[in-house]
Amino acid sequence: MTDIHTISEGGFNAAVIAAGVIGEHTADTVDVLNKLTPEESAEVLRLVPRETAIEILDKPELDFGAEIIEALPRDLAATLLAGMSADMAADLIQQLRDPLRGELMQGLDEASRTTITSLLSYPDNTAGAMMTTEFVSVPSNWTVERTLQHIRQVERTRETVYAIYLLDPYTRRLVGAFSLRRLILGEPSASVGSLAVAPITTLPLADREDVARLIARHDLLAVPVVDKTGHLLGIVTFDDVIDAIIEENTEDVQKFGGMEAIEEPYLQIGLGDMIRKRGVWLAVLFVSEMLTASVMQHFEGELEKALVLTLFIPLIMSSGGNSGSQATSLLIRALALHDVRLSDWWRVMLRELPTGMLLGAGLGVIGLVRIVAWQKLGIYDYGEHWLLVGLTVAAALIGVVTFGSVVGSMLPFALQRVGFDPASASAPFVATLVDVTGLMIYFSTALLILRGTLL
Amino acid sequence: MTDIHTISEGGFNAAVIAAGVIGEHTADTVDVLNKLTPEESAEVLRLVPRETAIEILDKPELDFGAEIIEALPRDLAATLLAGMSADMAADLIQQLRDPLRGELMQGLDEASRTTITSLLSYPDNTAGAMMTTEFVSVPSNWTVERTLQHIRQVERTRETVYAIYLLDPYTRRLVGAFSLRRLILGEPSASVGSLAVAPITTLPLADREDVARLIARHDLLAVPVVDKTGHLLGIVTFDDVIDAIIEENTEDVQKFGGMEAIEEPYLQIGLGDMIRKRGVWLAVLFVSEMLTASVMQHFEGELEKALVLTLFIPLIMSSGGNSGSQATSLLIRALALHDVRLSDWWRVMLRELPTGMLLGAGLGVIGLVRIVAWQKLGIYDYGEHWLLVGLTVAAALIGVVTFGSVVGSMLPFALQRVGFDPASASAPFVATLVDVTGLMIYFSTALLILRGTLL
Repeated sequence: MTDIHTISEGGFNAAVIAAGVIGEHTADTVDVLNKLTPEESAEVLRLVPRETAIEILDKPELDFGAEIIEALPRDLAATLLAGMSADMAADLIQQLRDPLRGELMQGLDEASRTTITSLLSYPDNTAGAMMTTEFVSVPSNWTVERTLQHIRQVERTRETVYAIYLLDPYTRRLVGAFSLRRLILGEPSASVGSLAVAPITTLPLADREDVARLIARHDLLAVPVVDKTGHLLGIVTFDDVIDAIIEENTEDVQKFGGMEAIEEPYLQIGLGDMIRKRGVWLAVLFVSEMLTASVMQHFEGELEKALVLTLFIPLIMSSGGNSGSQATSLLIRALALHDVRLSDWWRVMLRELPTGMLLGAGLGVIGLVRIVAWQKLGIYDYGEHWLLVGLTVAAALIGVVTFGSVVGSMLPFALQRVGFDPASASAPFVATLVDVTGLMIYFSTALLILRGTLL
Repeated sequence: MTDIHTISEGGFNAAVIAAGVIGEHTADTVDVLNKLTPEESAEVLRLVPRETAIEILDKPELDFGAEIIEALPRDLAATLLAGMSADMAADLIQQLRDPLRGELMQGLDEASRTTITSLLSYPDNTAGAMMTTEFVSVPSNWTVERTLQHIRQVERTRETVYAIYLLDPYTRRLVGAFSLRRLILGEPSASVGSLAVAPITTLPLADREDVARLIARHDLLAVPVVDKTGHLLGIVTFDDVIDAIIEENTEDVQKFGGMEAIEEPYLQIGLGDMIRKRGVWLAVLFVSEMLTASVMQHFEGELEKALVLTLFIPLIMSSGGNSGSQATSLLIRALALHDVRLSDWWRVMLRELPTGMLLGAGLGVIGLVRIVAWQKLGIYDYGEHWLLVGLTVAAALIGVVTFGSVVGSMLPFALQRVGFDPASASAPFVATLVDVTGLMIYFSTALLILRGTLL
């Protein structure tokens, strides 16, 4: 395989790379092209066999597919697009600008153009946008023999012959599905209807997460997408679903980290983009967190009288944030996996209340022990009322951790209730929510316990 | 389908449920059984056809498989285990206690026992533990015709005939692989060797994440697992990989939320387990965060002189934690997706430094504007040196956010370097790391800017 190191050492040579591509795994070729400029990649694609070029463009891992298409001669670009799987071709065309986009669409044959236009009409991340129209369907009154012949002759090029779909011969509605394995095992003269089972289907507007759940739940190779009248529009294959789950996973972790999801690999994002994706949320959180300054200003008198209280502000605030972050991460996944449903919110609240109180009490004991120890060992003097200060910290911890656990667990429910993805909840967002109230809980507890002594 | 509501209203009736199971999707049956006690489920399994019972036990979604096996008559349990796919049977047997475990192993036929024993020897979450031994392999000198006949006659029951593996007729080493589709398209008299391509393989000790990456990268239905001498041990199928990716995703989010990963569904974990999984990390973080109290004690004199500084402690600390959490989430995924490698750490550091400084400067401006506005509008009086206080806050924000971004981005590298999963880095852990240093940065900045005026 032509290695990228050879390339950078010897300078770019399209012919050498094109020759090295023969017989290699497409995924490896894509890795090589991803390190070239789109213009260089286009040059390589011109030199490799047409089938190879199509396989390369069909890989979702190719980084600059649209730019490569732009750099290709128009007629070659149109030929390659027509040969690609319809879902990937639609993805590429969507990224092109007019007039090139219009020109290429005109250059396609009628059938490809119609298919791609219809795929382009579905919103991103839906079954409709993910599906391919390259499925194999036969009338339900055919025999095993005839179906096998049909696959051998007509469907040679379909990469996605994992399942065969049965259509009603008159209404053309989807009525059944069976695997290639069942077809091979069937008696040649038997009707294919006898092999089929009722298919598990999805609608074109179903979210990609729902499609993934369906595939995982029923161990399917592909899910047929049908319209409301039961006509087969396309299939979503397991490999697209794996890609979708991995992308979703990345988005979830990034969102939970408190930023907008990023599609490009880390080292390829421009500094400006990076600042935007992180800065917006950071600024929103910062402005919200400013409320803590207001709370502190409000309790300024108490702080002046009892400066010792400020020592524990970071400790108490972070404990609330940490317990909230734990609860949020638990519930984001529980909702995503359908372990709990929206209507279970009160069950969850009833679990988080005792959980939070016990966890808070645990931390409270540790905090109290520390204050007593430092006082007795003479490491630090918390003043005359040190035991009361310790009790204030312990009591505040119970309140703050309980509040953090409850708020953190309810946030994903609230987001789902108002129509957002529960995974939009982020650890920094929970921490910010809990910080302001946490401070108020702390100062109120102090007022309650220390009034008449320190305050 | 017998609905769980019918069950709870009418009382448990195994016969009714068993009758309702016929012709239903196995995944739906599993949902129903998951709401019953293991003893009730066992009763249902005794009444359904043997093939159906095996399909049910084969589903990884079944919650109490081991308990159900325990509740079944010994001989039926052994029959069902022998009929199951070897990887799932091994999973169940692993969860059983002796003497039942030993008894059931004795009840298995020789071949099943050998297979299961060898599967049990691989560590969790490796290719060896995930693989099934139900693959179809033929000598490379067979014809298409003979292979088709072999599949029709011998391999009727293999659910996993997605690919056919070619073995060298003499050494029995794996030399090729091809899909069922290719087999059907092949000339009956052709040698299967002409259809095959060099297989993409993995080793039995490969991590499940690596197997998932291989399947996703090459869009494979299954990846063959070979030993060091090239002999085929089993295959890992795409559906097990999808399950593994989803489980990994859950673990990653929970760990990032700052807790030990939980395997059971949220509503099924006991309170004690829940407290343990969350409490340990919460306590570790709490004890580390106690250092903030020590830092505050150290700067007590400054705090007394300039109480106004305390007002911004939560704001500055949280900004450091938030930017750190963003950077960590970005790098966890970038490392998992192999977008960056361990040796790229300095490239990342060179990106995070300017990113952090620019983000910090942005927040600094917002903070400064707020202080100036509150002062000028008479909302709050920050004292004689209010502008210097504002500049201190702004300068500290630049320092803290830069520090947070760099530490947050380097943490996943550090974890991977010492052999941990980079996904063990959690938002609360980063926040705790950044909090202590953040406070020191803030107070040092204050000493620098305010010495001679407030301090």
